[in-house]
Amino acid sequence: MKILFHTPQANEADHWLPSLARALPVAHIRAWEPGDVADADYALVWRPPRELFARRAGLKAIFNLGAGVDALLSLEREAPGTLPHGVPIVRLEDTGMAAQMAEYTTYAVLRYMRRFDEYELAQRQADPSWRELAPHARETFTVGVLGLGALGAHVAQALASLGLPVRGYSRSDKTLEGVETFSGEANLDAFLDGLKVLVNLLPSTPDTDGILNRRTFAKVARGAYLVNLARGAHVVEADLLDALAQGQIAAATLDVFATEPLPPDHRLWREPRVTVTPHIAALTLREPAIAQIAQKIAALERGEPIGGIVDPVRGY
Amino acid sequence: MKILFHTPQANEADHWLPSLARALPVAHIRAWEPGDVADADYALVWRPPRELFARRAGLKAIFNLGAGVDALLSLEREAPGTLPHGVPIVRLEDTGMAAQMAEYTTYAVLRYMRRFDEYELAQRQADPSWRELAPHARETFTVGVLGLGALGAHVAQALASLGLPVRGYSRSDKTLEGVETFSGEANLDAFLDGLKVLVNLLPSTPDTDGILNRRTFAKVARGAYLVNLARGAHVVEADLLDALAQGQIAAATLDVFATEPLPPDHRLWREPRVTVTPHIAALTLREPAIAQIAQKIAALERGEPIGGIVDPVRGY
Ligand SMILES: NC(=O)c1ccc[n+]([C@@H]2O[C@H](COP(=O)([O-])OP(=O)(O)OC[C@H]3O[C@@H](n4cnc5c(N)ncnc54)[C@H](OP(=O)(O)O)[C@@H]3O)[C@@H](O)[C@H]2O)c1
Ligand SMILES: NC(=O)c1ccc[n+]([C@@H]2O[C@H](COP(=O)([O-])OP(=O)(O)OC[C@H]3O[C@@H](n4cnc5c(N)ncnc54)[C@H](OP(=O)(O)O)[C@@H]3O)[C@@H](O)[C@H]2O)c1
Repeated sequence: MKILFHTPQANEADHWLPSLARALPVAHIRAWEPGDVADADYALVWRPPRELFARRAGLKAIFNLGAGVDALLSLEREAPGTLPHGVPIVRLEDTGMAAQMAEYTTYAVLRYMRRFDEYELAQRQADPSWRELAPHARETFTVGVLGLGALGAHVAQALASLGLPVRGYSRSDKTLEGVETFSGEANLDAFLDGLKVLVNLLPSTPDTDGILNRRTFAKVARGAYLVNLARGAHVVEADLLDALAQGQIAAATLDVFATEPLPPDHRLWREPRVTVTPHIAALTLREPAIAQIAQKIAALERGEPIGGIVDPVRGY
Repeated sequence: MKILFHTPQANEADHWLPSLARALPVAHIRAWEPGDVADADYALVWRPPRELFARRAGLKAIFNLGAGVDALLSLEREAPGTLPHGVPIVRLEDTGMAAQMAEYTTYAVLRYMRRFDEYELAQRQADPSWRELAPHARETFTVGVLGLGALGAHVAQALASLGLPVRGYSRSDKTLEGVETFSGEANLDAFLDGLKVLVNLLPSTPDTDGILNRRTFAKVARGAYLVNLARGAHVVEADLLDALAQGQIAAATLDVFATEPLPPDHRLWREPRVTVTPHIAALTLREPAIAQIAQKIAALERGEPIGGIVDPVRGY
């Protein structure tokens, strides 16, 4: 069995290949290099270049080394025929990412509810006024989670366990304990209405890109908070900057950006009410990811069905 | 029935007196003013001046409008005979404070575990390096909670529910699900050994004051974090500044200080790895506090026992 590996980070292969070899002792595993068009049964990739798939017949499956398959599917959208036809694309299912996302959102939501961001701002502006700020009341600090997939559903329930009112939004109907659920575009406004915090965990697809726009910001409560952990393509940056300037959005925490790394001269680095982190909300944990991939390859080899197969039409 | 009310904040009485009157319709309630030595059955006080108790016979109980009775008991320690002999001192039992403390510590611990403080520092120093910092591993990010009372016990269990290893320290033996407990001075070192985060929720007493000192800081892990939510008297400030300078303590979050308000020129406002908040970790919530006091007064009037009575010898 031949396995092709690729991530954009130069030294990642040094870490992955030995572990993959241990988990899949029968396989020949190689890091893809430009020009490599030799046979492979499986491709394990993160943000692969288009060339990796050129003249590549015989692949049995493409494993995406992360939760979001937007980069992979957009290769095909931009140049149909890039991805080998009919080969299943398999995404990682929860390998510790949901817990990391819950930590990040719990942190961000408590920070805004208890106004720790404003205390920090006062301290760093050397404003020693020792002023008590009335916290937002927990009972009415309603958080809305866009996307109730592997990550969003877990996040919504973690927030509900803090005693906050939580709403969730998905494409198809969902039932989640402690969460008021809404589905479909017709119910988006009802979901958004008066939210104090909007957390985004949608996949990036042609249907969802740009969803964090002026219209959306106008529906949530005045002075609401935005936490974007999904993709930069979801945000209309000019609309966000306007909403911040007008106080319609009080503050935002952003882990993902239209261009990553966020360019050094980008305004978002310097907005006082914007907190940026470098796409670290949920990291792929190598060992559990490898264990999951090894199990799925074994199942495929035995002709058994596996979970995590992406629907390319739906886009996630 | 006559009730005397006092807090140091000028306009607090305007908020409390109408609510107290509704909860205790038979009582005459007045805000204490200097010179008032008239009769009273109950005193409801927060950080009262010594004079409030001068020539005051006939009190049936003193209600402390907060969790910590250190200010009240230190009046007596500094000038024995200040507090009327044999009159019970009653502290507020949980009226929403434990949940607030759990929010604060959850926030502070996640902030350090996921290194959000370092991302913030980089952003505010305009260091757009987009550098991923390895998070502390949840499984070994051991948090120790000093004090397992009304607040500490709840906080320890909230932290354990995040999946962190949690230890707790108290005077007497305790059993708490999900928490490894230690009691008594003889076991303090075992409790401290290698902790990644030290959270303080002890009462301030002659036995505990100064417990956050050089010796204590030397026992926890190198680069550990300190979260002090109890009293400023617990910290030896010079030792903390040294431990921070040497990196033995990586960072500290402090809600309480030797002098409050923290003086504008105090170093702690400006230490880059110190986060200060103005004694807001858990606020007394007026309505539940009043309901609890009204119930306890009714019980005392019927001659029934009540909870929350302070042991003046023990000091809490
Ligand atoms: N920042 C980071 O470090 C990081 C790490 C990992 C993942 N991510 C991102 O996190 C996001 C969520 O990942 P996931 O694994 O939870 O995704 P997922 O399991 O595919 O779930 C997607 C959710 O979004 C809903 N959805 C999709 N299209 C929709 C539409 N047009 N309208 C309404 N709802 C729609 C789906 O509804 P149905 O349930 O009805 O299908 C589903 O609930 C992705 O964008 C991923 O790239 C970020
Ligand atoms: N920052 C804020 O906004 C804020 C708000 C409210 C309260 N506070 C402070 O929070 C702290 C905790 O309040 P609480 O209501 O939880 O106190 P509490 O119910 O009186 O509990 C005190 C705990 O500390 C332990 N303890 C006392 N002396 C000890 C000693 N010498 N050695 C070891 N353990 C000792 C006790 O042990 P036993 O269980 O064996 O008795 C008990 O577990 C107090 O300092 C209070 O002033 C701060």
